[in-house]
Amino acid sequence: MKINRYQDISEIDKEAKKDYIDRHSAFVHCDSSAKKGEKFKVKVKVGDEYMHPDDFDHYISYVQLWDGETMLAESVFMAGALGNEPGHVEVDFHIVPKKKMKLTAMAYCTKHGLWQSDEVVVDVA
Amino acid sequence: MKINRYQDISEIDKEAKKDYIDRHSAFVHCDSSAKKGEKFKVKVKVGDEYMHPDDFDHYISYVQLWDGETMLAESVFMAGALGNEPGHVEVDFHIVPKKKMKLTAMAYCTKHGLWQSDEVVVDVA
Amino acid sequence: MKINRYQDISEIDKEAKKDYIDRHSAFVHCDSSAKKGEKFKVKVKVGDEYMHPDDFDHYISYVQLWDGETMLAESVFMAGALGNEPGHVEVDFHIVPKKKMKLTAMAYCTKHGLWQSDEVVVDVA
Amino acid sequence: MKINRYQDISEIDKEAKKDYIDRHSAFVHCDSSAKKGEKFKVKVKVGDEYMHPDDFDHYISYVQLWDGETMLAESVFMAGALGNEPGHVEVDFHIVPKKKMKLTAMAYCTKHGLWQSDEVVVDVA
Repeated sequence: MKINRYQDISEIDKEAKKDYIDRHSAFVHCDSSAKKGEKFKVKVKVGDEYMHPDDFDHYISYVQLWDGETMLAESVFMAGALGNEPGHVEVDFHIVPKKKMKLTAMAYCTKHGLWQSDEVVVDVA
Repeated sequence: MKINRYQDISEIDKEAKKDYIDRHSAFVHCDSSAKKGEKFKVKVKVGDEYMHPDDFDHYISYVQLWDGETMLAESVFMAGALGNEPGHVEVDFHIVPKKKMKLTAMAYCTKHGLWQSDEVVVDVA
Repeated sequence: MKINRYQDISEIDKEAKKDYIDRHSAFVHCDSSAKKGEKFKVKVKVGDEYMHPDDFDHYISYVQLWDGETMLAESVFMAGALGNEPGHVEVDFHIVPKKKMKLTAMAYCTKHGLWQSDEVVVDVA
Repeated sequence: MKINRYQDISEIDKEAKKDYIDRHSAFVHCDSSAKKGEKFKVKVKVGDEYMHPDDFDHYISYVQLWDGETMLAESVFMAGALGNEPGHVEVDFHIVPKKKMKLTAMAYCTKHGLWQSDEVVVDVA
């Protein structure tokens, strides 16, 4: 088992490699601070500039949201939920933080394995 | 295995029963029409007027989104993701419809089993 | 959402219908009694006389084991784990019962929905 | 997100650390060779000499079986499925290999994160 990491695609020359890395990478989108005990929306989206296929034999089957070493939530998708067209898997989790979080997202492609996002730190007060 | 169904709580007398039914029921929140091949947000939320505990031995551990007999997506939560306080489990799925949908949501409580939402019909054109 | 139930295929005339029902049905295989607090093996197997495809667009993607209204365990499979050939999805759960169980299994086919097994009662002493 | 790895506990002095590492580690138990296209049993078991709690706020909530970078199957457990007593989470997957496999198992503890097994190579002919 191996985890692929996001690389800054602006530093990559080959178009095909930019595409490969970007379309598999999970991104955490949320505010940088949250109120303790109140609902907080965290979007996990796969790919930024490039889209991933949604074919039966090649799709993003799950994403996970982690806070440090703790898994908070997971979403599982069936092939075809993105209409069998390339797109960005996207899910919004509404969590309730108690203390500072270090969020990462994982995305699993049925052909190209597991991809880990950069970490996003959220201050909670 | 048994599936509990939503009942209109305005027709129920006992406060405790209103609370029991409402806080376990899954609700599908979305527009009534969608554009074919475009992203469409579907919120699944558990409970409307009453909140469900988020205790380690009593929490909503997953919700599922179905279109007729087809499962589109599932979200799994860990106990404590709602801050160990009563609240409404809530997740937004962003799906891409191809044709008319009949959406239902399922919610699973670790103490009180599986609950099915009312069906929401979405026209797709 | 609808749950399909097992029907005794010996009472069904049409070969195609026997095949359709049998290959989707989940079966619980285990002893009829268990020792309290000791490991107990429960096999969940999909299909008895007929095999189900393991195609990318048509496979058994999960099975669940329930005791009454309580879910004990779930197994999720990726398309191709049965070698892309027809077969019987099969998983053995090793649980530790505390009291009499009423086990049912659910199986989900990505084309033909959710199927519930007959109930198997296990005495626990 | 971080992955803990198995360490040979015979080389560890402190009893508490032996216990901590062993009871969280996933182990893959299977034959070292398999027949192509035939069912092959792979047991994933958590812990070898030491047992893990099955408390509501501290349990093994899932195990996964991987072949290289490909996930084959996952089992999810509810707290209490091991009787709320310390034990070894254990599940047998019956897969159908097509070519040489490099199997690893992952186990997730709700308090102590994700643990990866050593790799087990299976020749397939």
